Amino acid sequence: MSLQEQLQHKIAIKTKPQGSLGQLESLALQIGTVFNTLTPQIKNPHMLVFAGDHGIAREGVSAYPAEVTPQMVLNFVSGGAAINVFSRQNGLELKVIDAGVNYDFALQLPIIHQKVGYGTKSFLKQPAMTQAQFKECLQKGGDVVEIVHQKGSNCVGFGEMGIGNTATSSVLMSILTTIPIEECVGSGTGVVHEALERKTNILKEALSHYQGEDSIEAKLAHFGGYEIFQMAGGMLKAFERDMLIMVDGFISTVAFLVAHFYQPQIIQNAVFCHCSQEKAHLAILNKLNVKAILDLRLRLGEGTGVALAFPLIQSALAFLNEMASFEEAGVSGIES
Amino acid sequence: MSLQEQLQHKIAIKTKPQGSLGQLESLALQIGTVFNTLTPQIKNPHMLVFAGDHGIAREGVSAYPAEVTPQMVLNFVSGGAAINVFSRQNGLELKVIDAGVNYDFALQLPIIHQKVGYGTKSFLKQPAMTQAQFKECLQKGGDVVEIVHQKGSNCVGFGEMGIGNTATSSVLMSILTTIPIEECVGSGTGVVHEALERKTNILKEALSHYQGEDSIEAKLAHFGGYEIFQMAGGMLKAFERDMLIMVDGFISTVAFLVAHFYQPQIIQNAVFCHCSQEKAHLAILNKLNVKAILDLRLRLGEGTGVALAFPLIQSALAFLNEMASFEEAGVSGIES
Repeated sequence: MSLQEQLQHKIAIKTKPQGSLGQLESLALQIGTVFNTLTPQIKNPHMLVFAGDHGIAREGVSAYPAEVTPQMVLNFVSGGAAINVFSRQNGLELKVIDAGVNYDFALQLPIIHQKVGYGTKSFLKQPAMTQAQFKECLQKGGDVVEIVHQKGSNCVGFGEMGIGNTATSSVLMSILTTIPIEECVGSGTGVVHEALERKTNILKEALSHYQGEDSIEAKLAHFGGYEIFQMAGGMLKAFERDMLIMVDGFISTVAFLVAHFYQPQIIQNAVFCHCSQEKAHLAILNKLNVKAILDLRLRLGEGTGVALAFPLIQSALAFLNEMASFEEAGVSGIES
Repeated sequence: MSLQEQLQHKIAIKTKPQGSLGQLESLALQIGTVFNTLTPQIKNPHMLVFAGDHGIAREGVSAYPAEVTPQMVLNFVSGGAAINVFSRQNGLELKVIDAGVNYDFALQLPIIHQKVGYGTKSFLKQPAMTQAQFKECLQKGGDVVEIVHQKGSNCVGFGEMGIGNTATSSVLMSILTTIPIEECVGSGTGVVHEALERKTNILKEALSHYQGEDSIEAKLAHFGGYEIFQMAGGMLKAFERDMLIMVDGFISTVAFLVAHFYQPQIIQNAVFCHCSQEKAHLAILNKLNVKAILDLRLRLGEGTGVALAFPLIQSALAFLNEMASFEEAGVSGIES
């Protein structure tokens, strides 16, 4: 029997009706396969939150001022944000990465300092970053995960903070999925009505004015997202190291799309933790043919969906490792 | 300001976009209201699993033989079932109650022995139980919760085990909601195709042959469910003691409907933990105008939905109690 068949058998003989643990059964099968064992254990799980600023935020696509990005990074450092609370509660080690915030953080702060620039440029007027910077992001994101892996971790979650990054993500989604931009745009953290229409029009204009090289990579660099590309690089490294990749909401899933562009097999290692209120997120999940674990109507980011879903991922492994079989428990099977 | 307004304000000033924690925000508001405090804490949470046998199981409405009820109770006692695994993982104290299993459990086993009968009678042929037994169930279920309350618990989950109890629950649901029986029937733990049609026809026949008193209580007693009514009694007591009531899947929600028939305000104290694959469950949740926390395609019962959702209930309180406010963190609010 292959490992997959052995896992399926192990799940089938547990004292419960066949298939009755639903999505936890597919998670157990997937994670056993990723870790290549019948007794998968999560080790030293990490939550990585990448922060970056977006030039497009200055064009009025966000409900919050750009200053909120560094302010929230400092909030992460002091432990007061939602992702701090949920990571503490559920035993995830939180690391905050400055991927490109427009602010100089004191070097002694517990931040992984790997800024690629002081925020991207506004892609409405110029390329958000150079192609060299794009590659640098992939590299640096990978470096973080390599360190986490070397600390003995086999499981890593990806969250983000960056005012304006839903706008950037909508454009990247449209480029990577060929879904029209109108269907990739949503309210972010609070853009509604006329402001939402304005956001859509700005992004449409930016896309239609693009005059650079006709390659996906050139377009990705043009529309940017330092933190998004560092996440993508981190995911690619996690795949390379046979780690479980926990994807958060819309922006984290767009970062996953970038990684998926380079390595389609990465889907095998990824669990999608929360289906965002950002409607375009569901469109990507459907395109990837995956179902998120949670749907709590969150629209916060930071990796909160990952931290909240983490106990359920642990539950999938707990039932696989700890439940009795019909034979062990002396329970009769289904009537034939 | 009322407590509710104070709770809303406390949630609103946390460092996150308004409403962005979705369902966790409504949970925090609800639980703060139930516990009557701005700093709600769950104390000594319990998972109660009520077991009972059903005469209707002998008419071929279940995929499993009736012997599985006592076998699974013994599996709970040895710690090998799904509910054991998830309760251990998430810090719920598990108690197993014999509400009416057709088996004599050794008295020294860690079971709360309060059998009302050796399984109900088949309601296809005679009343499942007497009205006196129905009242006895409500009383005994309340007794268990009273003890849990006296141990300092303010939070209790309700799960069940009983071969045939989805059939019983479908009939009770139809009686309590006036939804036609055909829309209240589902596959249980594995009844499909012709067997499902047969199950539906048997329940339809049983309902149409009912010749007892035309009162809800008389009908409930006639169609039975020792464990279902003990759960209902437990829920009513939990409401009386200002406890949080964690409802599991279809059968647990039907028990809630019985409690709700006596005390409609009980909805204020109830959280619905998982939307079952049993399609009728969603119909009840919609009728009650509530949204379950999880939708993992479970169809197992035992209280597994409660045990799995419990960390999210804790998350709702954690963000309320631990997150920084905009002012505390020095984060700018939304642009006006």
